[in-house]
Amino acid sequence: MSTVFDLVIHNVNLATMAENDNYGIINNAAVCIKDGQIDTIISEMDKQSGNLETEQAIDAEGRWMTPGLIDCHTHLVYGGNRANEFEMRLEGASYEEIAKAGGGIVSTVKATRETDKQALFDAAAKRLTYLIDEGVTTVEIKSGYGLDLDTEQKMLEVASDLGQYSPVEVSKTFLGAHAVPPEYKEKADDYIDLVCEQMMPALHQKGLIDCVDAFCEGIGFSVSQTQRVFEKAKSLGLPVKLHAEQLSDLGGSRLACEFEAWSVDHLEFLNEQDIPKLKHAGTVATLLPGAFYFLNETQLPPIEALRKHQVPIAIATDSNPGSSPCLSLLLMLNMATTLFKLTPFEALQGVTINAAKALNISHKVGSIAEGKQADLVLWDINSPAELSYRIGGNPCHTVIKKGEVILAKG
Amino acid sequence: MSTVFDLVIHNVNLATMAENDNYGIINNAAVCIKDGQIDTIISEMDKQSGNLETEQAIDAEGRWMTPGLIDCHTHLVYGGNRANEFEMRLEGASYEEIAKAGGGIVSTVKATRETDKQALFDAAAKRLTYLIDEGVTTVEIKSGYGLDLDTEQKMLEVASDLGQYSPVEVSKTFLGAHAVPPEYKEKADDYIDLVCEQMMPALHQKGLIDCVDAFCEGIGFSVSQTQRVFEKAKSLGLPVKLHAEQLSDLGGSRLACEFEAWSVDHLEFLNEQDIPKLKHAGTVATLLPGAFYFLNETQLPPIEALRKHQVPIAIATDSNPGSSPCLSLLLMLNMATTLFKLTPFEALQGVTINAAKALNISHKVGSIAEGKQADLVLWDINSPAELSYRIGGNPCHTVIKKGEVILAKG
Ligand SMILES: [Zn+2]
Ligand SMILES: [Zn+2]
Repeated sequence: MSTVFDLVIHNVNLATMAENDNYGIINNAAVCIKDGQIDTIISEMDKQSGNLETEQAIDAEGRWMTPGLIDCHTHLVYGGNRANEFEMRLEGASYEEIAKAGGGIVSTVKATRETDKQALFDAAAKRLTYLIDEGVTTVEIKSGYGLDLDTEQKMLEVASDLGQYSPVEVSKTFLGAHAVPPEYKEKADDYIDLVCEQMMPALHQKGLIDCVDAFCEGIGFSVSQTQRVFEKAKSLGLPVKLHAEQLSDLGGSRLACEFEAWSVDHLEFLNEQDIPKLKHAGTVATLLPGAFYFLNETQLPPIEALRKHQVPIAIATDSNPGSSPCLSLLLMLNMATTLFKLTPFEALQGVTINAAKALNISHKVGSIAEGKQADLVLWDINSPAELSYRIGGNPCHTVIKKGEVILAKG
Repeated sequence: MSTVFDLVIHNVNLATMAENDNYGIINNAAVCIKDGQIDTIISEMDKQSGNLETEQAIDAEGRWMTPGLIDCHTHLVYGGNRANEFEMRLEGASYEEIAKAGGGIVSTVKATRETDKQALFDAAAKRLTYLIDEGVTTVEIKSGYGLDLDTEQKMLEVASDLGQYSPVEVSKTFLGAHAVPPEYKEKADDYIDLVCEQMMPALHQKGLIDCVDAFCEGIGFSVSQTQRVFEKAKSLGLPVKLHAEQLSDLGGSRLACEFEAWSVDHLEFLNEQDIPKLKHAGTVATLLPGAFYFLNETQLPPIEALRKHQVPIAIATDSNPGSSPCLSLLLMLNMATTLFKLTPFEALQGVTINAAKALNISHKVGSIAEGKQADLVLWDINSPAELSYRIGGNPCHTVIKKGEVILAKG
């Protein structure tokens, strides 16, 4: 008695990402899906495969398949945008003039507070369609433009709704400690009190927090303020991650490793001596080439040392209105290779298995393997390296989430 | 007796690009199209516009409209791709190893020679759909991967067919002097003889050449070899343009200005003293930020001096498999602003009115003006600056070519 599958995709070349080299390639395969999961992978399709019993079959016509892509660091929910500020700066406006015109993160906080939940949802859902259009099946979304309880809650509820009403899964990150809000100017410690004593417990109680994040930087919060946030998270049983070492080496990553952070993100100024700590803590190094590019940075993250210590590297869009107004995860593959000199294989690991590790979901997604969730993408490409090589021009052909076709361009 | 228009687009904000500042904005307008042309532009729509007689009407719902975008420098027709070489280089292969594996421009020449016309057409047509999807309505396409008469002819015929069978117009450029083909190694002058005495006259006679181009560079052709190409073009009554000053300052731009070139392209190493010559000759400075980015260049083109001398600046993809595998003109706007520090208005001029100047078609396209061809794009944006600000995430809503809707995403 053989299984009747729900869906079989045959005549397909797999970049399973289940091996640590050469993409875990399986040529001329068939992927058999049952109940939203990858039930069986048949390699070297032979005539017998013609006899697989299935409700639905897709002939991939020799296309390549990868795991569904995972964007593990975004700020996808926000009000307004900052095109005006971008334009003013390029037209020669000074920092003061831009601040006077209401620019900077404060403008996004103001707009996000003023925008109602439905409008925030609609704008973020629109942005999300661009990501899905390029094969993204799981996305992380942070709060952090509310900086008060009501608006942080509104943002996380929108993130939660996106997980419910869009075809992708959403990992919800509480980033209350993103910036000091205007009303707490010069009183950052008092704001951290608010984050720890009121916001985090209340939002956690509502089930809105999967992970707790902070921005540890000269223009954000100090290591000791970050530590207070992390200790509170730990006391609530919540995992943590951190924006760290983007503009300077404050040592945030060291602290994050003490709390076994899921990931530390940015890392241009990461001290090489701290890298073994990441490996030891199981913390992923998430690189954000879009922000590096958009801010015209020149200090490169310590790629070679991360490689040497076998720290998993993830890649994400950091999609946000101020420093990375980016809605293309494929372009991040190109920037990770062109600007950071990752190999195309490393870049693809960065948006599949390693991004899954950065969200603590690698047991169920991030590679094509029997028993994993059937989150899969078919691509019109001749080799997996093409996903990194191209600049624009989206070769995504079909996107499958939990065994269901959610996008078909054939 | 009033005209009955073929199409009226109302409730639209225009970035006409017909003025030299602030996008030539006309808010709340109606654009009335007759016989493929912009017949009338009505500003400050009042009730009267409800009475416009028209076969078809589009309510733009307050969206922004720009002229159809023009990609004035591409190598869109070629065989194969170079993802493998890209990957080998990032995996640490030496120049010799890549050459041994058949890498470099020679590999594209080989693949282009071996690929039949239909397959070349299909691959280029697919690439062209990505450009059209972002609002491109006119594209320049160069030969230059044949380097023998038959293949150069095949490439230009494909370019010509794309103009006939795709919805956009194609400007065909003969780039026989792109590289020295393997069979002429160490005999570049003999190859220039072939280009001038056989290829150019034969291809011109078939009506396949709108303009003649060359690659003037240490790794391409010398100034005196370029001059021979230009003199032959002149004798045939053909205009010229030039790949110049990309990697060094050979003085190709000075020569091109003597021949009143349509454009000189790349220009990272352009000598500022030559800039008045461009202005005097009416030659457009075409910047190619995708190649700058992909090659990790650091020498910036002399933007400030080009501005000072009021030389029109165009922006293009340089879409090609070796140094700019780029299929997003919108991303080039972002790179022109982020990397070259053009303003968003200058960047948009670069893909509209100034790109039209670079192809000598600014009398009929490149701006929204009465009497011009109705090549128009509607965008889901809140301000024209957004077209440069965004990184990925295509906001194109509707594309109109000669008054016909060729793409509608509503
Ligand atoms: Zn971030
Ligand atoms: Zn070129």
